[in-house]
Amino acid sequence: MADAIQLVPGNTLITATPEEGRQLAIKMSRLIIKATQPDAGIREMLRPIYAQDAAMLIAAGQTVAIEFATIAAANNYWRNNG
Amino acid sequence: MADAIQLVPGNTLITATPEEGRQLAIKMSRLIIKATQPDAGIREMLRPIYAQDAAMLIAAGQTVAIEFATIAAANNYWRNNG
Amino acid sequence: MADAIQLVPGNTLITATPEEGRQLAIKMSRLIIKATQPDAGIREMLRPIYAQDAAMLIAAGQTVAIEFATIAAANNYWRNNG
Amino acid sequence: MADAIQLVPGNTLITATPEEGRQLAIKMSRLIIKATQPDAGIREMLRPIYAQDAAMLIAAGQTVAIEFATIAAANNYWRNNG
Amino acid sequence: MADAIQLVPGNTLITATPEEGRQLAIKMSRLIIKATQPDAGIREMLRPIYAQDAAMLIAAGQTVAIEFATIAAANNYWRNNG
Amino acid sequence: MADAIQLVPGNTLITATPEEGRQLAIKMSRLIIKATQPDAGIREMLRPIYAQDAAMLIAAGQTVAIEFATIAAANNYWRNNG
Repeated sequence: MADAIQLVPGNTLITATPEEGRQLAIKMSRLIIKATQPDAGIREMLRPIYAQDAAMLIAAGQTVAIEFATIAAANNYWRNNG
Repeated sequence: MADAIQLVPGNTLITATPEEGRQLAIKMSRLIIKATQPDAGIREMLRPIYAQDAAMLIAAGQTVAIEFATIAAANNYWRNNG
Repeated sequence: MADAIQLVPGNTLITATPEEGRQLAIKMSRLIIKATQPDAGIREMLRPIYAQDAAMLIAAGQTVAIEFATIAAANNYWRNNG
Repeated sequence: MADAIQLVPGNTLITATPEEGRQLAIKMSRLIIKATQPDAGIREMLRPIYAQDAAMLIAAGQTVAIEFATIAAANNYWRNNG
Repeated sequence: MADAIQLVPGNTLITATPEEGRQLAIKMSRLIIKATQPDAGIREMLRPIYAQDAAMLIAAGQTVAIEFATIAAANNYWRNNG
Repeated sequence: MADAIQLVPGNTLITATPEEGRQLAIKMSRLIIKATQPDAGIREMLRPIYAQDAAMLIAAGQTVAIEFATIAAANNYWRNNG
């Protein structure tokens, strides 16, 4: 099933800015959930549960932080952007 | 038992694209579960449990993020792909 | 919704000092929560819950540590600051 | 007690292939459990508990992912294997 | 509120020895808790809770390990110290 | 209190072998617990609790894996040992 879902939007880790890198990290972390639970109905049911649970929000944030570490390294931390 | 299961499909971390790298990360994270719990019946029983549990979906996503960090580094982040 | 929230203040990971890098790590970890739960009312309700829960405070601190690792690498660990 | 258990089989992180690196990651993560709980009887008692618990299987998989990241870096990601 | 608390003592990640690096990791992980929960009274109330809870002690230790990874990299692992 | 406990045995991350690096990782992860909970009586009380709890053993193993990643990098993965 994972094959049917695009897991990396644009199929690249390279982004123009840190802001876009961060948005990509969020998207990639959500697409993994989608690949693991492809049933949109169940995902819709789960979303309010975790979005109102402090512990789960923190855990979801931790995943984004890990995804972002990879994307930031891929972009050499956008050091030459300024 | 782990020896009987192929843990790294293709026995390489090198993939053509980020998308394929992400698919490999998902597969590798699932194959570790398989090596730890080789009984297919029990795994089938567990799958709906974690696929309908927001906290577990997030945790599973975190593991994929860690596997992907390694695969992305192995591929020099596919920087020369575009 | 994530698009409407600025996820990386200043749109750069480069900071003058480790102290400012640490402040950025805190802000970035909070902005992810905001992007995941954009409803300010629910966030206000959740904040006292996790701020008085030792396990969640530790988990939130772990996320900041991961964000900071990325920011510190981006700044070459501020080695030439002293 | 940890001194009596061999924690790194072969006393090297270098392996011929990613597959063998992954097997080493699994072994190393299990040997740490053994060093922390040297009583084989208790470990035998705990094994079915975590092998039938989705959350624990995911957590165990996450540890393997972290061990593998180190082993993969040690082997320069087996880039020259193909 | 975070702005009022010094998050990185000495405003540098550079330390003379691994031992001092480790002490800095502990301090930094505690200062994040302080920034998240600035009320000293609540922190005093929470401290005995997590210091007597094995799971939380382990989680707190994990955060220190992540902070230390960053500090150790900043110091090139103190390789030229011996 | 942390100042009174030696947090890095030998005050170096450099070890002769991966095996010794792994032993150091275990020791360092335990010394952090000791620094956080300096009361030996409470630690003795907590030890059987976490050593018989599968989830905590896995979490403790994850911390060792993170400590080891740092130590392995410090030693250039002992690549020139064989």
